[in-house]
Amino acid sequence: MRGAVLYGPRDVRLEERDAPKIIEPTDAIIRLPATCVCGSDLWDYRGIDPVAQPTPMGHEYCGFVEEVGSAVKSVKPGQFVVGSFATSDNTCPHCQYGYQSSCMHREFMTRAQAPLLRVPLADGTLVSTPSVPSDDLVPSLLTTSDVLGTGWFAADAANVKPGSTVAVVGDGAVGLLGILSAKQMGAARIIAMSRHDKRQKLAREFGATDIVTERGENGVARIKDLTNGIGADSVLECVGTQESMMQAINSTRPGGYVGYVGVPHGVALNGEQLFFAHVHLHGGPAPVRRYLPELIKLVWDRKINPGKVFDMALPLDQVAEAYRAMDERRAVKTLLRP
Amino acid sequence: MRGAVLYGPRDVRLEERDAPKIIEPTDAIIRLPATCVCGSDLWDYRGIDPVAQPTPMGHEYCGFVEEVGSAVKSVKPGQFVVGSFATSDNTCPHCQYGYQSSCMHREFMTRAQAPLLRVPLADGTLVSTPSVPSDDLVPSLLTTSDVLGTGWFAADAANVKPGSTVAVVGDGAVGLLGILSAKQMGAARIIAMSRHDKRQKLAREFGATDIVTERGENGVARIKDLTNGIGADSVLECVGTQESMMQAINSTRPGGYVGYVGVPHGVALNGEQLFFAHVHLHGGPAPVRRYLPELIKLVWDRKINPGKVFDMALPLDQVAEAYRAMDERRAVKTLLRP
Repeated sequence: MRGAVLYGPRDVRLEERDAPKIIEPTDAIIRLPATCVCGSDLWDYRGIDPVAQPTPMGHEYCGFVEEVGSAVKSVKPGQFVVGSFATSDNTCPHCQYGYQSSCMHREFMTRAQAPLLRVPLADGTLVSTPSVPSDDLVPSLLTTSDVLGTGWFAADAANVKPGSTVAVVGDGAVGLLGILSAKQMGAARIIAMSRHDKRQKLAREFGATDIVTERGENGVARIKDLTNGIGADSVLECVGTQESMMQAINSTRPGGYVGYVGVPHGVALNGEQLFFAHVHLHGGPAPVRRYLPELIKLVWDRKINPGKVFDMALPLDQVAEAYRAMDERRAVKTLLRP
Repeated sequence: MRGAVLYGPRDVRLEERDAPKIIEPTDAIIRLPATCVCGSDLWDYRGIDPVAQPTPMGHEYCGFVEEVGSAVKSVKPGQFVVGSFATSDNTCPHCQYGYQSSCMHREFMTRAQAPLLRVPLADGTLVSTPSVPSDDLVPSLLTTSDVLGTGWFAADAANVKPGSTVAVVGDGAVGLLGILSAKQMGAARIIAMSRHDKRQKLAREFGATDIVTERGENGVARIKDLTNGIGADSVLECVGTQESMMQAINSTRPGGYVGYVGVPHGVALNGEQLFFAHVHLHGGPAPVRRYLPELIKLVWDRKINPGKVFDMALPLDQVAEAYRAMDERRAVKTLLRP
């Protein structure tokens, strides 16, 4: 089979490799009708997180179980499943507390930009859909594996409640689905920070009530203006830079909440500044496994349509163009069909 | 009257100055039977936060109302009151959310190491006791003004609940009263980090179940040992250095909570490290005003005896010795009698 491999900055190739096999009795092999490129893949693609050697890519996945190891009990061949980008046994103390993405046996998935994928700890990682989904549901189910789960965690970590005033920093797919999540959680007002027409439109479709195009200190000033000088109750940080993090912290009212899910790159928080900001701060790798049953149900019942973030779809053969389009911000998120 | 003034590193003097007067109609003047030195005063005293000019000191206070401005409605002369180290109108949006120490009209108190004190925004800052307290209650009432309120906020910010496993970084008066607070909130296990015999004894008296003498990475390893490799649910950071902050963050389980109240000095948090630690982080200047009614009641009903942190009492005349004793860790906290 052929899978995507990153060779270096802006050099991603489709390369022949052996199909995955069951290694541990807790493994499953699944066949992927769809996979995609994640915003976080761009850190590697752009050389900001340089790869030391050719590196198989992809960690968002859903598909049909082909084969399971002898110890797997909860899924079986033929079922359609979704899994988290981070594997989990779903039984260790961290998992029991709902932090499956910090499972004591966690592995971060890779190799999902391919037709077949080995998923370790299948029982604790995969959740099956009620039956085989219709094709049009597949993109939305795929989002639950990471990008929606991560936007949802941002909103949850930012304590979004019915009636909340929310601001979202970042108009990538995670930020956009953070908006959708905040809307689902009952936010009264959702301020999207975006300077990109197409993304603003999708933001509004997902529930944004206001758009702020300013950034940095000016962006903070706009949020303050829009909230009578108070600041937002909940701010979702969906980028991971120093500027975006400070924009999020400074847009939050004292006692408010920042949920941060953009993997921080070069971020250093000044302790004294954070102290006097008086905010709650929570984030990290999204515990997608915790949310999967609920998110799959919302998609299954057609209550939400997060698959709309895929504004480009390509055969896996064109993976190089998929990365390029996202790198150049021509696409919000690219679906790949193996 | 004579009040304490800091002239420079380790140079605190009692100096004659005018007695305070009502300036704004919202002011009150109170007569202090007791005041004290705060751990945070030592940052200035040691020259870590250098003073630019001779600076009146003191921000913890309780006492008898002498006089009120024409607009003051909630307290009257003769009443015994306690106020927060940060003034608040208790009506602005931040106050309404319970973050009175970020009140839009906040002033940080100073000049409380003196016999008389002007308190701005008296209606929103002061809380009266049910009647005039007996002398033996005064030290405990004084603690509610800052040091107990701050320890309480640390425990609250760290989400201490019945049954929680708690660790406390810092064995100063705030840390010790953080232990007392965690105990009141129903913590099942409270691990005090202290290498000082006398403080360990008081920690146990306030509710500590375990003592860890190691610091830094070794301290973290001990907390992990004591919690089956999981980490604590709630960690109270009551120091404010880079080492203590990282000790707190790394002692917390993924999904657990760090409440930090030590004013950070030279603390820089690495974004990526914080992200993967997966903890909740909340802190800042304690919203003492929110807690005052509850804390005064606990003291009044003799359910708690936080005044035990005062292991030295001196006349205000000996303020220089009061600072020296705390600086040299001969005293946990020094009560001053004007």
